[in-house]
Amino acid sequence: DFLNAMTEIIPAFGVSEEELETCTPGGIIPYSPHIAAILKEGKLYVEQVRQSEKTPLVSVLLHGPPGAGKTALAASIAKLSAFPFVKLLSPESMVGYNESQKVSHISKVFSDAYKSPLSIVVIDNIERILDWVPIGPRFSNSVLQTILVLLRKTPPKGRRLLILCTSTERTVLQQMDVLNAFDAEIAVPNVTGFEQLAHVLKETGAFPSQEQQKAMNELQQNLAGASDLSVGIKKILLGIETARQDEDSAGRFAEVITRAVQFQ
Amino acid sequence: DFLNAMTEIIPAFGVSEEELETCTPGGIIPYSPHIAAILKEGKLYVEQVRQSEKTPLVSVLLHGPPGAGKTALAASIAKLSAFPFVKLLSPESMVGYNESQKVSHISKVFSDAYKSPLSIVVIDNIERILDWVPIGPRFSNSVLQTILVLLRKTPPKGRRLLILCTSTERTVLQQMDVLNAFDAEIAVPNVTGFEQLAHVLKETGAFPSQEQQKAMNELQQNLAGASDLSVGIKKILLGIETARQDEDSAGRFAEVITRAVQFQ
Amino acid sequence: DFLNAMTEIIPAFGVSEEELETCTPGGIIPYSPHIAAILKEGKLYVEQVRQSEKTPLVSVLLHGPPGAGKTALAASIAKLSAFPFVKLLSPESMVGYNESQKVSHISKVFSDAYKSPLSIVVIDNIERILDWVPIGPRFSNSVLQTILVLLRKTPPKGRRLLILCTSTERTVLQQMDVLNAFDAEIAVPNVTGFEQLAHVLKETGAFPSQEQQKAMNELQQNLAGASDLSVGIKKILLGIETARQDEDSAGRFAEVITRAVQFQ
Amino acid sequence: DFLNAMTEIIPAFGVSEEELETCTPGGIIPYSPHIAAILKEGKLYVEQVRQSEKTPLVSVLLHGPPGAGKTALAASIAKLSAFPFVKLLSPESMVGYNESQKVSHISKVFSDAYKSPLSIVVIDNIERILDWVPIGPRFSNSVLQTILVLLRKTPPKGRRLLILCTSTERTVLQQMDVLNAFDAEIAVPNVTGFEQLAHVLKETGAFPSQEQQKAMNELQQNLAGASDLSVGIKKILLGIETARQDEDSAGRFAEVITRAVQFQ
Amino acid sequence: DFLNAMTEIIPAFGVSEEELETCTPGGIIPYSPHIAAILKEGKLYVEQVRQSEKTPLVSVLLHGPPGAGKTALAASIAKLSAFPFVKLLSPESMVGYNESQKVSHISKVFSDAYKSPLSIVVIDNIERILDWVPIGPRFSNSVLQTILVLLRKTPPKGRRLLILCTSTERTVLQQMDVLNAFDAEIAVPNVTGFEQLAHVLKETGAFPSQEQQKAMNELQQNLAGASDLSVGIKKILLGIETARQDEDSAGRFAEVITRAVQFQ
Amino acid sequence: DFLNAMTEIIPAFGVSEEELETCTPGGIIPYSPHIAAILKEGKLYVEQVRQSEKTPLVSVLLHGPPGAGKTALAASIAKLSAFPFVKLLSPESMVGYNESQKVSHISKVFSDAYKSPLSIVVIDNIERILDWVPIGPRFSNSVLQTILVLLRKTPPKGRRLLILCTSTERTVLQQMDVLNAFDAEIAVPNVTGFEQLAHVLKETGAFPSQEQQKAMNELQQNLAGASDLSVGIKKILLGIETARQDEDSAGRFAEVITRAVQFQ
Ligand SMILES: Nc1ncnc2c1ncn2[C@@H]1O[C@H](COP(=O)(O)OP(=O)(O)OP(=O)(O)O)[C@@H](O)[C@H]1O
Ligand SMILES: Nc1ncnc2c1ncn2[C@@H]1O[C@H](COP(=O)(O)OP(=O)(O)OP(=O)(O)O)[C@@H](O)[C@H]1O
Ligand SMILES: Nc1ncnc2c1ncn2[C@@H]1O[C@H](COP(=O)(O)OP(=O)(O)OP(=O)(O)O)[C@@H](O)[C@H]1O
Ligand SMILES: Nc1ncnc2c1ncn2[C@@H]1O[C@H](COP(=O)(O)OP(=O)(O)OP(=O)(O)O)[C@@H](O)[C@H]1O
Ligand SMILES: Nc1ncnc2c1ncn2[C@@H]1O[C@H](COP(=O)(O)OP(=O)(O)OP(=O)(O)O)[C@@H](O)[C@H]1O
Ligand SMILES: Nc1ncnc2c1ncn2[C@@H]1O[C@H](COP(=O)(O)OP(=O)(O)OP(=O)(O)O)[C@@H](O)[C@H]1O
Ligand SMILES: [Mg+2]
Ligand SMILES: [Mg+2]
Ligand SMILES: [Mg+2]
Ligand SMILES: [Mg+2]
Ligand SMILES: [Mg+2]
Ligand SMILES: [Mg+2]
Repeated sequence: DFLNAMTEIIPAFGVSEEELETCTPGGIIPYSPHIAAILKEGKLYVEQVRQSEKTPLVSVLLHGPPGAGKTALAASIAKLSAFPFVKLLSPESMVGYNESQKVSHISKVFSDAYKSPLSIVVIDNIERILDWVPIGPRFSNSVLQTILVLLRKTPPKGRRLLILCTSTERTVLQQMDVLNAFDAEIAVPNVTGFEQLAHVLKETGAFPSQEQQKAMNELQQNLAGASDLSVGIKKILLGIETARQDEDSAGRFAEVITRAVQFQ
Repeated sequence: DFLNAMTEIIPAFGVSEEELETCTPGGIIPYSPHIAAILKEGKLYVEQVRQSEKTPLVSVLLHGPPGAGKTALAASIAKLSAFPFVKLLSPESMVGYNESQKVSHISKVFSDAYKSPLSIVVIDNIERILDWVPIGPRFSNSVLQTILVLLRKTPPKGRRLLILCTSTERTVLQQMDVLNAFDAEIAVPNVTGFEQLAHVLKETGAFPSQEQQKAMNELQQNLAGASDLSVGIKKILLGIETARQDEDSAGRFAEVITRAVQFQ
Repeated sequence: DFLNAMTEIIPAFGVSEEELETCTPGGIIPYSPHIAAILKEGKLYVEQVRQSEKTPLVSVLLHGPPGAGKTALAASIAKLSAFPFVKLLSPESMVGYNESQKVSHISKVFSDAYKSPLSIVVIDNIERILDWVPIGPRFSNSVLQTILVLLRKTPPKGRRLLILCTSTERTVLQQMDVLNAFDAEIAVPNVTGFEQLAHVLKETGAFPSQEQQKAMNELQQNLAGASDLSVGIKKILLGIETARQDEDSAGRFAEVITRAVQFQ
Repeated sequence: DFLNAMTEIIPAFGVSEEELETCTPGGIIPYSPHIAAILKEGKLYVEQVRQSEKTPLVSVLLHGPPGAGKTALAASIAKLSAFPFVKLLSPESMVGYNESQKVSHISKVFSDAYKSPLSIVVIDNIERILDWVPIGPRFSNSVLQTILVLLRKTPPKGRRLLILCTSTERTVLQQMDVLNAFDAEIAVPNVTGFEQLAHVLKETGAFPSQEQQKAMNELQQNLAGASDLSVGIKKILLGIETARQDEDSAGRFAEVITRAVQFQ
Repeated sequence: DFLNAMTEIIPAFGVSEEELETCTPGGIIPYSPHIAAILKEGKLYVEQVRQSEKTPLVSVLLHGPPGAGKTALAASIAKLSAFPFVKLLSPESMVGYNESQKVSHISKVFSDAYKSPLSIVVIDNIERILDWVPIGPRFSNSVLQTILVLLRKTPPKGRRLLILCTSTERTVLQQMDVLNAFDAEIAVPNVTGFEQLAHVLKETGAFPSQEQQKAMNELQQNLAGASDLSVGIKKILLGIETARQDEDSAGRFAEVITRAVQFQ
Repeated sequence: DFLNAMTEIIPAFGVSEEELETCTPGGIIPYSPHIAAILKEGKLYVEQVRQSEKTPLVSVLLHGPPGAGKTALAASIAKLSAFPFVKLLSPESMVGYNESQKVSHISKVFSDAYKSPLSIVVIDNIERILDWVPIGPRFSNSVLQTILVLLRKTPPKGRRLLILCTSTERTVLQQMDVLNAFDAEIAVPNVTGFEQLAHVLKETGAFPSQEQQKAMNELQQNLAGASDLSVGIKKILLGIETARQDEDSAGRFAEVITRAVQFQ
């Protein structure tokens, strides 16, 4: 069927550049020094895997609030590595799979990775892969256990593997004893404060500078009493597109961001 | 069998105008300025999907009390879009399906949508599709996870999709982390206050004006001490039809509305 | 096997008069003005379905204490309608069915109903159909969800349906969000007070008038300090039959009713 | 296999006298006037079923402490009825059955009963048939629901059925809403007080009268400070047999009864 | 496979002397008068089954702390009976069985037992047969219910059966209502106090008398402030073997016992 | 498939030296006298199994914090035994197995072990083999029960078995009643205090001595106010490799260890 057809056109080996591209539709805007620091730390682990014989496996968790840019940054690190095998293991690629199909698919991705001398597996949005829901709570324990073991399983001789995992649910992972299975963690923050927001707006060139000023003013008024502004880069980019459809773009943008801030 | 037969006569592609019509048996009565505002906001998202290249997917939740008109308004927005593909994904179309059949059906509707350049999927009454029941609580996690992923899954290149979802259970969706998956929310209110109610009655022409006055008077007496009147438009339209069968139509109408208000 | 054999002799279409008769082995004794009022309200909904084009579906819940006469009254309303299709959906007709067989059976009954221009489906003792048990609590969610959807599903064009449902567990239905799915509710009360009880005894002609007096006296003594007498009509009729086997019929009847009252 | 073989030699129709006999290995000792009263009340329901046209189904629960004689008394009532069909539905006859096999077996027993004009079904030790365990608690809901419906299902025209059910767990049945499904209840008490115990001992002729006196004395000493003696008849008869193997029969008997009393 | 192969070499009928022998690798050391008393009480029940016609089934529970000698004593009683059929029903004989395989195996053992005029079934370590785990708690209810019924099921005419069951979890059995199903209980105590321990050491001849004195002294020092010494005989015998491998046998023995006592 | 292929190349009998080697990629650094003591105690149990006829089965638990070196030490003890059969039973060897496949695999490993006169089975990371997760908590009870029985099952005549099990979850094992099933326990500690850490660094020769000093100084500053330093040897060795990729190796090492200490 459709889903299978879609996955089949992606080669089992090698890198699907295109797939990685779709993870950064808004590019990587350097709105804060953190962004460079994250990319640099990512590179460190890439080099450790490439060069250290004693650590053929390194696993890293990128965690942060919804829409902070975790997937885009993990994809960027993977792409920059130029490793011969890079694979994105995402919930979207397993829609409609039952527990045992998920376990098989995940095992397959790793056994594919073990065939290349240098590999990266990006486990995107791990809580969704685990079918996590806070009511209960419920999740797939067989998928969880499979991932827990694969996060620690030494690749065969001569093979090296970097695992990059993204999640909004660090606390949940801690409760599940998954945190312990990672060798390192990278925190991905929200866009924070009016200055960073302005930086993003300017970089996108979304609004003429007068419009931008109007939007910022209106937003500052709306959020007067409120605590610090903090929004995911993803929400900001979406809000810009919605605002463009409105006659009053600046007003609509201010409203979208206001709602986003107030909901947190 | 019967259910399958019924679904088969609806084309997999294209729009079933008739199906959308059945969602507004009572039309759209403009009993308050909110109604126009909702339709306008709906149009905004339709335009964003039609025009913005950067947001090929927009998902919107219409929430509000039972019978407030959520399904009718979502269907109206969809119909007005004139998109080539519009599909109603409703619990009624999945009666007797088990969990995996539901997951297949839902995946199929979305993969059909991905084949049209501009599509709308209306997920009607999502809590019923999830087999939600507050005792326990219980629900189908595999259906939930499927929808959670599809609400975020970018359509293939060149395809654009608007998702409209209706629900009476906003709080439940929040507890399930589903709210986060929507790009925007629209609140659909009850008919509120005697004036709006009178507006509805007049518009329907259900009662001769003297009868209407009698019904309103009786209702005002019944609800004397009570707080503000607030009833779903659906209940009002049903109450009119019941009242018509009674010798004392005005009295029966007042009683039906009184019970509805008191039960809340 | 036996159960299937039994259901097969009942025609899928049309009305099984005999089946409805077995619901009123003790007739309908007009021991209080409530009885007439209930039958009249039932008739109102029958007429709404028959005549209003705008409400092709009306669903009504008859609720009350065990043995109050809910099933007998629902069956009477159905019989008096003279609709061409009347079907009793009862737990007895699904003994030994598993969850999915129940869902199939229920769906089948409704799809049969949709083939007649005017239909009534009586869902008898819904808590038993749901396999409800307070310990846990446990119940069949797939059966519940099927009924929840069918209670709201508009019949096809030109078809009209009245659903009459009986239950002793109104509170449970409320907790399950089933109450919301009904368009109307009818409360069926117990036989209340000595006068109504005497009315029933007289109407049945069970005891010679002296015996009846003796039974009533003894009962009044037994229940001296107790609060108001309140018993289901079904228990009273059963008690009469037990008492007839005893040498001391009056004494035995008084004892049976006393126990019934004290257990509540 | 063995279990099936064993059940097959018992005729599906008719009465297995032998099976009923095995329920009263110790006979029925009239150690208290309660015993006669219970048998008389049992006869009353037998006659109601035999004679009243209006109550073709009567269901009775015999409840009491472990070993009080519930099964023996139910079997006696059934045997004395001389009904053409009497069937013992016991946990022993369903060892190793899974839930659906139990449901089938139970349904079969009742459909067999419906073929005879006058039938009795003894449901022995219902909590065991339900796989009840207090930890959890856990039980088979599908078996429970089957029995709940069969306890209320009117036999076909011209057939009459008496259901006798035994249980030590009246409170559990109440929590499961099973109590409501019975038309009547009979309480079966323990042997209570030294006098009744002496009556039993004498009737069995187990000990020479001097030995009996010695046993009673020793027992009275053991239980000095304790509250009233209360033991099941079954435990007493077992204790007699154990004591007979001991050199000091009287002492051993006193000890067995002492432990039994103290454990309660 | 392996497990099946192993069970097949044991005859379905008759006694596997060898199997019983393996239950007493350390013999039965009469370190306290309790030991003789337990064996005597066991013999009493053996005789009751052999001789009393009225009690063709007797079931006895041997309970006590881990390693107290329950299995060894049950096996000894069984062996001394010289009954023609003796079967050990142990968790070890059901490794890897699923619930229904366990139920079948258990039923088979009992139906085999019913074919011999005099039989003993030893149910060893019942909590393990039940898959009991305190977390949850969880256990196999179908196995539990099977055993609950078999503990009470009268053997066919002319057959007599003694059931000996061992357990460390008397409280759990009580919570599961299993205790009630036993006709008698025997408590198996730990080795208690230094004197009994010395008795055991001497009997085994494990240490030269000077070494033994040294071990006892060291132990008394270790446990100075502690409450009474109390250890299972099994642990003591194991500790002796471990100690023998150490240069400082006495010191190692004292340490092993100290740890054992302190952990309780 | 891949996983099966991988396990098949390992002989069912005999010792896979290579597999044991992969458990000690960092060797065994004698950074504290505890290390020698653990190896000596391990040897004691090896000798008990080899020499004592009365204890053909000895089971030992090695427990301690994550990365303390449990697996490496268990593998070392096993390798030093020079037993003809040594098998590593690890979660990695059962990736993607369902519960019954795990049970089969585990049973198979033990039945293989029973075929050799002297065997060792290392059960590595038992909580992972049990699919343990603290949320719920959830785990595979059928795997747990299998292991619980195998930990106590006497090998056939002439066969001797040492079981070495590793775990970070001693408390969980206690709650599951698994602790009781072990004959002995060995605690494996973290690297504790700056001196032991310096010992490790020096032994690895990772940094030139000046660099090492700089790293230690920086670390001491970072942890100033903090309580005692305590880190797993595994984390230290990994940190060294990460640090080597950084320009500022000493600083990076200090940071990695600081984070590790602070997270505990
Ligand atoms: N500095 C940046 N870092 C990350 N993403 C950026 C940055 N600048 C622009 N973007 C864009 O912002 C979007 C970030 O979305 P992304 O899906 O990566 O967020 P996320 O944190 O993974 O969201 P979610 O929590 O929903 O998984 C992408 O479109 C990306 O191209
Ligand atoms: N202004 C209006 N907005 C919405 N519906 C209206 C309006 N005026 C009239 N209606 C009619 O009111 C009814 C609204 O029913 P609808 O099923 O849409 O409510 P709902 O909120 O989806 O109910 P539910 O909570 O049961 O799903 C329809 O018959 C519709 O034609
Ligand atoms: N006025 C009355 N209303 C209802 N039933 C009556 C009336 N008079 C006599 N009856 C008889 O009383 C009995 C009522 O039993 P019915 O099964 O309808 O009660 P119910 O409330 O459905 O019981 P349950 O709670 O067990 O389902 C029937 O035999 C019916 O014929
Ligand atoms: N008066 C009596 N009433 C009942 N049983 C008696 C009486 N006198 C002697 N007996 C004997 O006592 C025993 C009662 O055992 P029975 O199995 O009927 O008890 P029970 O209450 O069903 O036990 P359980 O709770 O275990 O099911 C039988 O052997 C019966 O023959
Ligand atoms: N007096 C005694 N009573 C019981 N066992 C004894 C005695 N003297 C020596 N032994 C030996 O002690 C050991 C007792 O172990 P056994 O397995 O019977 O204990 P257990 O209580 O069943 O242990 P567990 O709780 O692990 O099931 C056996 O080796 C037995 O031969
Ligand atoms: N003295 C030592 N004891 C144990 N391991 C050591 C020692 N010195 C160096 N090592 C090395 O340290 C590492 C210990 O890792 P190992 O996997 O055994 O830890 P673990 O406690 O089993 O971890 P986990 O909790 O993740 O299972 C191995 O690489 C081992 O070679
Ligand atoms: Mg993401
Ligand atoms: Mg709706
Ligand atoms: Mg009824
Ligand atoms: Mg009984
Ligand atoms: Mg034992
Ligand atoms: Mg380890």
